[in-house]
Amino acid sequence: MKTYRSTHLIKPEDLNHHQNLYAGRGIEWMVEAAFVAAALTHGDSSGLLYRNTHQFSFNKSVEPGEIVSYYSTVVRAGRTSLTVRAALIAEQSGELRAEGYVTFVTVKSHTHELVAHGLELDEAVSQEEQAWRDKAERFFTG
Amino acid sequence: MKTYRSTHLIKPEDLNHHQNLYAGRGIEWMVEAAFVAAALTHGDSSGLLYRNTHQFSFNKSVEPGEIVSYYSTVVRAGRTSLTVRAALIAEQSGELRAEGYVTFVTVKSHTHELVAHGLELDEAVSQEEQAWRDKAERFFTG
Amino acid sequence: MKTYRSTHLIKPEDLNHHQNLYAGRGIEWMVEAAFVAAALTHGDSSGLLYRNTHQFSFNKSVEPGEIVSYYSTVVRAGRTSLTVRAALIAEQSGELRAEGYVTFVTVKSHTHELVAHGLELDEAVSQEEQAWRDKAERFFTG
Amino acid sequence: MKTYRSTHLIKPEDLNHHQNLYAGRGIEWMVEAAFVAAALTHGDSSGLLYRNTHQFSFNKSVEPGEIVSYYSTVVRAGRTSLTVRAALIAEQSGELRAEGYVTFVTVKSHTHELVAHGLELDEAVSQEEQAWRDKAERFFTG
Amino acid sequence: MKTYRSTHLIKPEDLNHHQNLYAGRGIEWMVEAAFVAAALTHGDSSGLLYRNTHQFSFNKSVEPGEIVSYYSTVVRAGRTSLTVRAALIAEQSGELRAEGYVTFVTVKSHTHELVAHGLELDEAVSQEEQAWRDKAERFFTG
Amino acid sequence: MKTYRSTHLIKPEDLNHHQNLYAGRGIEWMVEAAFVAAALTHGDSSGLLYRNTHQFSFNKSVEPGEIVSYYSTVVRAGRTSLTVRAALIAEQSGELRAEGYVTFVTVKSHTHELVAHGLELDEAVSQEEQAWRDKAERFFTG
Repeated sequence: MKTYRSTHLIKPEDLNHHQNLYAGRGIEWMVEAAFVAAALTHGDSSGLLYRNTHQFSFNKSVEPGEIVSYYSTVVRAGRTSLTVRAALIAEQSGELRAEGYVTFVTVKSHTHELVAHGLELDEAVSQEEQAWRDKAERFFTG
Repeated sequence: MKTYRSTHLIKPEDLNHHQNLYAGRGIEWMVEAAFVAAALTHGDSSGLLYRNTHQFSFNKSVEPGEIVSYYSTVVRAGRTSLTVRAALIAEQSGELRAEGYVTFVTVKSHTHELVAHGLELDEAVSQEEQAWRDKAERFFTG
Repeated sequence: MKTYRSTHLIKPEDLNHHQNLYAGRGIEWMVEAAFVAAALTHGDSSGLLYRNTHQFSFNKSVEPGEIVSYYSTVVRAGRTSLTVRAALIAEQSGELRAEGYVTFVTVKSHTHELVAHGLELDEAVSQEEQAWRDKAERFFTG
Repeated sequence: MKTYRSTHLIKPEDLNHHQNLYAGRGIEWMVEAAFVAAALTHGDSSGLLYRNTHQFSFNKSVEPGEIVSYYSTVVRAGRTSLTVRAALIAEQSGELRAEGYVTFVTVKSHTHELVAHGLELDEAVSQEEQAWRDKAERFFTG
Repeated sequence: MKTYRSTHLIKPEDLNHHQNLYAGRGIEWMVEAAFVAAALTHGDSSGLLYRNTHQFSFNKSVEPGEIVSYYSTVVRAGRTSLTVRAALIAEQSGELRAEGYVTFVTVKSHTHELVAHGLELDEAVSQEEQAWRDKAERFFTG
Repeated sequence: MKTYRSTHLIKPEDLNHHQNLYAGRGIEWMVEAAFVAAALTHGDSSGLLYRNTHQFSFNKSVEPGEIVSYYSTVVRAGRTSLTVRAALIAEQSGELRAEGYVTFVTVKSHTHELVAHGLELDEAVSQEEQAWRDKAERFFTG
């Protein structure tokens, strides 16, 4: 599936008291990046509601002045849900700093009644993409 | 374990384009509320780092003008980690609107080297608290 | 009367150029905490309008990384007004850092016409609570 | 004394759930405007600490799209304190919407030890300015 | 034409990773200050739409704790447009730190159809004001 | 040259009083997107200072709920400067909503002394890219 990218410069307003990226800000941006990927894949931003974050894990802190991007890809399509995997990458080093999985549901835009989206995943283009899909599946099958 | 409470009035700056609480804002607040519970239980806010959100699921939307609280409780104590369960409750109706689980690790404040915190959970005071602990455990044992 | 609590972690975005909690942010949070106490005591957040802050005094500065709570209690009930006392407490030391008094008026939610709220204060549970009530009274009697 | 002016356009991010200017935002701006007046009158922004808000009363609500200014004037000079009166005026109608009084103390910039500022008020240029001074005085003499 | 003034205290939330005023914040404030000048000169904030920034150049950085004002003046009146010059001045030193030119168009408030505003510039009160007008003119005649 | 992309969901906190994207927010994001393109092209975010915005013109308003991206490309390389062209595109319609040109200078990171960056533009890959370069050139040659 297509990967979307959302880039941020880390400024003092984004920091915690350790002077690196505040997790609350990082997760807010991740949810927005995941929404964008789901909405652009789905084609309709008004018929999509947030349902759940399954993971947002930090591997390594992000420093002020760094430029980071969230790379977001739909990795699971249920009948009325879409799950997105988002990776937080530091642009200058290429390092993975954080990783998340978020699920949205597709609804009628006024009543918010669940509605099938009809989307199917295409073929995974890499073992990595397949691994993300397998991981997403496990959040649902437990 | 002691439950901490963090309260917010929902204002226009907190909304999404459906005119209810934006999930990105809701999850940012949840991370902060969970941090507060972990830090006050641990006794040291400088020796605590965010590691992972295992869940942040919305059950029902939150409207502008509503007053909501995050009720946060430590529900798992690993050797160098603390997991917090946070419930987002609408104060006037008492309804549960969202629920989350977040893990922090305990570190030396300057080097960020992992360090055992020595905390143990007390006895659960209710079946509900035990259920939260069991659920948190399953995020670690898969 | 019941005391409500609203907790914040102090982050860089909350600071002034002395690198401690900016008074403008501290007073914004105090007004929100006082509103929450008035609305939950009154039972209706849409029929309450801000009228006046009588005091918001800082005793000692608040540092980044500190966790602080506003403890807010209704301390005066006029015919169409409610006055709240809010204390800003540093959670780890227990110190009082700031103290404020705010008055709201009760109105019909669409016309904003003043309307009697019918609330009466219960008996003060401590000399401290009585002292807050006496202080609030003096803002009105001069 | 010289009056300073600080102007804002009211945008959706500044509103409460009644869709007019949120009091928390209005009072944050008032504290900043009062600080500016005190610092520019005193000549040193690093030697000035917030001490207390004596009043911030709203007379009439402010609507989105309105342009408002805070007009701030030093109205009392204690030995180590300066009190500022700030008026919130709607620019297009000229109406007074809110009014506040804030006191700052003058300190040594590193130790925060109180230090006399040596400022004296000039002669009031109007009965109005004298009335503000008299009012400020009453916050101190009770 | 009348000059309007909008003042800000530089706080940590306004900084870039070099710890001085972030250009993105500085230019956002400039656009707001220019809008205020255009709207108050025009007399109607609902019939004015942003069209273009022709310049926003920084000469020298702004430090935390500094107090700065935007001084904004209408310097060009097309048939359906108003161009504003805004200067960012550090209040304590009087230095010019940045300078900008912004054009707004006048419209019917509901349809956003262009409408002649009927305003004409008065006589320039100084060579400086004339120089701003000449400069603005060159953005249009290119 | 490589084009960088930065994506945003339009939320109520980003709106003006006409309920569409506030120009001040749009231009703040444009400056950040342009900085990201310049820094990633240059390879060093600490040696780059904002100098000037030559244009940020809105063609058509942006509505809440829309997803927009800034597409940013270095289009001019002076000896110690880089100029970026940024286009604001609505993702679902593909429409160009706004366009900007911003110049940064390259400096030694501690002294902020101008330093040659040694970058040269590659061959333009399209007539469109060449047109952006020609336009940028005209901001310098008048």
